[in-house]
Order: sequence, then C-alpha cells, then structure tokens
Amino acid sequence: MALAHKGFFPEGIPVGFTEKSLIAFSGQERVPILIDQGTIVTESWTIACHLEDSYPDRPTLFGGSMGRNLAGFIDAWATRSVFPLLVRLVLCDVVDHLEGADADYVRTSREKQMGLTFAAMRQERDRWLDPFRQSLAPARSHLKRQLFISGEAPGYADYCLFGFFQWARMISSYPVIESSDTVGVWRSRVLELFDGFASKAPASSN
Amino acid sequence: MALAHKGFFPEGIPVGFTEKSLIAFSGQERVPILIDQGTIVTESWTIACHLEDSYPDRPTLFGGSMGRNLAGFIDAWATRSVFPLLVRLVLCDVVDHLEGADADYVRTSREKQMGLTFAAMRQERDRWLDPFRQSLAPARSHLKRQLFISGEAPGYADYCLFGFFQWARMISSYPVIESSDTVGVWRSRVLELFDGFASKAPASSN
Repeated sequence: MALAHKGFFPEGIPVGFTEKSLIAFSGQERVPILIDQGTIVTESWTIACHLEDSYPDRPTLFGGSMGRNLAGFIDAWATRSVFPLLVRLVLCDVVDHLEGADADYVRTSREKQMGLTFAAMRQERDRWLDPFRQSLAPARSHLKRQLFISGEAPGYADYCLFGFFQWARMISSYPVIESSDTVGVWRSRVLELFDGFASKAPASSN
Repeated sequence: MALAHKGFFPEGIPVGFTEKSLIAFSGQERVPILIDQGTIVTESWTIACHLEDSYPDRPTLFGGSMGRNLAGFIDAWATRSVFPLLVRLVLCDVVDHLEGADADYVRTSREKQMGLTFAAMRQERDRWLDPFRQSLAPARSHLKRQLFISGEAPGYADYCLFGFFQWARMISSYPVIESSDTVGVWRSRVLELFDGFASKAPASSN
C-alpha cells in the first residue's frame, strides 16, 4: 500500500515459508523485502521510511517529521493492541492455504508460539471477537470525524492497520468486522484505493 | 500543557463540580474553558487546535495537517483505551479531595455512571492494574525508540495521554505506573517540561 501510495506497482515475488534460501540475500529471514534500484530494504516500517525519504516529491506517507513519529505510534498500536487479537480469530485458517512443508512449518511454529493447537484456536475463537472489535474503539471513534486515520487522504497510519485486515481477508473467511461498522466502512474505502489495488488480491472473504 | 507548549502560562480559575453557574457564560457545563483575548474556546482538543491555528509561529503541537489528524487518533486512543481503565484505579479516591456538595455530586453521579459504589471500586481496583498497564503497550513499545510520543520533542499527542496521568496523580496516591516502566520514565520526563510546570501542581502521589 505504501508503494502504491507513492505510485509504484512493482513486481512481487511470492516466497513460501520454507523458502528462506530465496531471501537469504537480504541478510535476514522475513518478508517484506524491497529491492529499490539495487538497494535492499527490509521490514514494513523501514520500507515506508525509505520510500518517504527517497521519493519526497510523491504523495507523502507521513506529512512531516512529527507525523512520521505519530504514525510510528499508530503502527505500534496496530501491532500490539489489535493484531494479537486478530491472530486469535483467523490464524487457524492459514493452513487451508498452504501445502506440504509450508503447512507443516506454519502449523508447528505457530502452535508452539500460541501454546494452542489450530483446532483449539478454531474452537475458542468466537470469544475473541468482542475483544478484537473493542480494540478498534480508538479507530472507530476517530473515523467518525474523518475519512481516513491520516485525515481526508490516506497515509501510512491507515496502511499499517489495513495491512492486518488484508492479511485476515486473504487467509480466512471469518467475519472479523461488520461492513456497517465504521471501521468496516473505512476498510472498504481503503480496498478501493488505487483502482481497487488491494481488492484484487486473492481473498478468502470480502 | 498545550498552553505551556505555546509559551503561555495564563491565570487559572478553579471551578467546583457544583459551580456550573460560574461557567454558564461558555454555553456548556464542562472544563477546560480557554478565554483568549475575548474568544471563548471549550474542550481540550478544540483548545489545542485553536492554539495551533492562532499561534502558528510558536512551537507546533501537531507538526502539520496530517500530524494533527494522527494526534487526533492518539487522543481517541488515550480516551477510549487507556482512560476507562485508569478510572477503575483512581476514581474512588477523588472524593478525598472534595468537600460538601461537590463530594456528594461526584459520588452520586460517578457511582451511577460506573454502576458501582466507590467502596466497591476501591475493593476491586487491584485487578484492573494489569489491564491498565497492558493498555499502554503501544506507548511502551513506541517510547523505546524515542523520547516523546511525538518524537525528540513533545507535542499534543504526549499531552493528551499525560493529562490522564496528571489527573490520576492529583487525585490519588495509587501507584498506577512503576517509575522504571518506559511509560513511567516518559511521564517523569513530561513532568519536568517547562521548568517542571506539571510537577508543581498539587499531587497525591509522585
């Protein structure tokens, strides 16, 4: 989304969970990785900062130095207060989209991380729905006043929260948010940005 | 704090809970109220925006338009996700600082709002301590990277969270945050701003 915001729609290279060798060149083991004219940049936040600093004449992601720091807080909020609850709702469905070694790797590593089998997660997930939706209270209240978290136009603060929704949308058909919810309306709005860029990704749900 | 940030240290007029007639001139019933050269501005966020717009040459509270919107989100986060838990910890102590009609008014109205007597709140408050401290996770993570929520210098996003801590500090000696907690260190840092402006307010705790 940050790339699209800057007007870039680069080629994406799918990387399986067990294909770490494909990304060894980056000196670490996780996606996303951006290769920008030979420069390798890893991790979403660092990529966003790289794009903002390298392409200052394109639409801004942060709106200045203080805006960048405040977006960093919202990134931390989405990561610490929202994502862990979303994981409870949809992570168990990710194996439906994986095969062979990838499915085994994800099941084993995630079940260990969570201290819970995917079957158990599926069984108890309904009780995490209210806490998840409550965690969105600040966004719900804020989005009653404006179209996007960042204002009348979207920015990185929107994309960091949206990214988690997009992850959920791609791996699970579990209805994490009602379309009539203020946050659900915002999610649909972000899906439509850049000629429906995000809506074209393969989805399990809408 | 927003006024001090802009270099203003105006005269404050204490208003008791039952002295609504004193503020009737503002056309509403709540504090804070700013009287700025004859202009009456109410409500913290609106006052901050008024100061930013009226005194653009003084230190910025938001760092631009997107920063203002992002600070609005953090204000919503502090109000919706942190403050309700802080209320559980310290509200019951507020009556220790009130007398007569004010004490009666606050006890009756707040006990009704909470659906709980102050005595019951005091008895159960310990179990809200962990949820409160957990609600600060985004700030804790963010403040490991920088001195203030707004960056290397403070801004309104810092003051909206700090204001709730200051309220707690003034009405209760309940230890809401450990001084070694990253958020506790930040709180001490904000108390020291503007020659220790906030630290000079009458406090129940430190």
